Amino acid sequence: MSLDLLIEKIVKTQNPTVVGLDPKLEYVPEFIKKKAFVKYGMNPKGAAKAILKFNKGIIDAIYDIVPAVKPQLAFYEMLGVEGVKAFHKTIVYAKERGLYVIADGKRNDIGSTAEGYAAAYLGKIKIGEELYSPFPVDALTVNGYLGSDGIMPFTDACKKYDKGIFVLVKTSNPSSGELQDKVVGKVTGFADGDTIYEIMGRMCEKWGAAGKKRYGYSGVGAVVGATYPEQIKELREMLPYTFFLIPGYGAQGGRAEDLKSAFDKNGLGGIVNSSRAIMCAYQKEKCNQKDFAEAARREALKMKEALMEHIGIIKLP
Amino acid sequence: MSLDLLIEKIVKTQNPTVVGLDPKLEYVPEFIKKKAFVKYGMNPKGAAKAILKFNKGIIDAIYDIVPAVKPQLAFYEMLGVEGVKAFHKTIVYAKERGLYVIADGKRNDIGSTAEGYAAAYLGKIKIGEELYSPFPVDALTVNGYLGSDGIMPFTDACKKYDKGIFVLVKTSNPSSGELQDKVVGKVTGFADGDTIYEIMGRMCEKWGAAGKKRYGYSGVGAVVGATYPEQIKELREMLPYTFFLIPGYGAQGGRAEDLKSAFDKNGLGGIVNSSRAIMCAYQKEKCNQKDFAEAARREALKMKEALMEHIGIIKLP
Repeated sequence: MSLDLLIEKIVKTQNPTVVGLDPKLEYVPEFIKKKAFVKYGMNPKGAAKAILKFNKGIIDAIYDIVPAVKPQLAFYEMLGVEGVKAFHKTIVYAKERGLYVIADGKRNDIGSTAEGYAAAYLGKIKIGEELYSPFPVDALTVNGYLGSDGIMPFTDACKKYDKGIFVLVKTSNPSSGELQDKVVGKVTGFADGDTIYEIMGRMCEKWGAAGKKRYGYSGVGAVVGATYPEQIKELREMLPYTFFLIPGYGAQGGRAEDLKSAFDKNGLGGIVNSSRAIMCAYQKEKCNQKDFAEAARREALKMKEALMEHIGIIKLP
Repeated sequence: MSLDLLIEKIVKTQNPTVVGLDPKLEYVPEFIKKKAFVKYGMNPKGAAKAILKFNKGIIDAIYDIVPAVKPQLAFYEMLGVEGVKAFHKTIVYAKERGLYVIADGKRNDIGSTAEGYAAAYLGKIKIGEELYSPFPVDALTVNGYLGSDGIMPFTDACKKYDKGIFVLVKTSNPSSGELQDKVVGKVTGFADGDTIYEIMGRMCEKWGAAGKKRYGYSGVGAVVGATYPEQIKELREMLPYTFFLIPGYGAQGGRAEDLKSAFDKNGLGGIVNSSRAIMCAYQKEKCNQKDFAEAARREALKMKEALMEHIGIIKLP
């Protein structure tokens, strides 16, 4: 159970970022949509083929400068079965290009149901004597509201198949505090006055404790929003073995200068997500739509530079 | 936004239960698997065809005596794209048979991502001038850890398309208390000493307040485990507009006599789930596997009787 592969890729690219592959149909350049609709029909199949083509273009443009991609399952599920097919083809393509793939599904359940999700994304299923990897990604985001019963099936799969999870701890959205910032009173095993996100963070540290830690971080990461820099700083100090997946950079308000504290002295400890800014860079640049992939690469490099200005250098411990 | 259709079906069948369609491959009778493997191969496609056939048999056997089914998405996703196809065909078939369909996906996210999930299960997507319902169910389970931002996109879809959601409040598993039972200290707007599950429950009541309430219940239901009867009683009194989806009956330990307090004076207010006991009734009965559907019907009737013994009669207010 580890995030070692991710960490190695971050060091190799000197880039602690992940490109979110959240291909809403309106993000896709017209010429790609037109071609797909002509060939497959103006329907979910045509739309799914268009987003797959778009994803492949983005992947081709960034795979050598970015360590990871994070497809968001909702945007594929919303195109039905055809969308899920496009998700599958996207992750296979990204893996072929050497990218670390994080499925952003925020899955959660208990017992054999959680085992089902774990098998779907992190593990294997057995049919007859053959093993199959339904959606072979490297890591999955999960929601820990159900407690340890809801996490163990995932960490078991992580151990067995050397995969990772990222547990929602302090999310980037404005209302994340409605639950996550609640201050807990008398709780056995925790100091008075802990917030729910702190408790969730400490559970991540506990769940990850049994995992391999070649580079100091376990296979149980935490989702911590870029929009809450104070909490990132606090959680970084509190959770030394927990790697952070950091959404909310850019459009949502998270700034590069606020994220320095997410990283340790080696520049490790976090990976910052950007989705729309990179996917839709061609819209912002107002360049030729055919240059959408090059525009995405330019934006990805810009983001890398903005972060690395504050981090300096990233090295293995 | 309502659960009116569900309530009408419960009254019509005099049966406050929902059959969980969680078709693990080992639940499926050998003769169905064999036939599917011969026809489609011993692979995910063959397995998905087998579970679809099994589901249809169960649905045919219970659609006139049970108001609702609840397919659990994990068991379909674990068969990859072919499994998701089987999920789609299962919900379409169940709808055709007049059943109320709850997709148990525990989905959660924010902003346009949550809108994506809402469109996938509760709403419609627009491609060109056509509207599509990717996975047309009546209700979806959701996880509220992200707060209101994570729920509003779902309630918006519920309002627009007259659908429902069930938010995880107090789940049935042993470790649900690790987070959900935490007692909160000073919180604006809530009394000192509330637990997280109580806060989540009150948020359900708030989120549902704007919805239609022909029969007293909004479109925002709550998942409350049958294994915690005291909490069910407490939440029933605390949340008069919130309908309960109650897992954990039977195998997990929830008993019929403990569930009376989940229901109001009209016998409404909750629907109790049973999955394996019904799907695998033929294994327990040790009857001929070909009678799996009849065995499921017998078990479903047994469960109905056990519950109705304590409820008496169910009527519209």
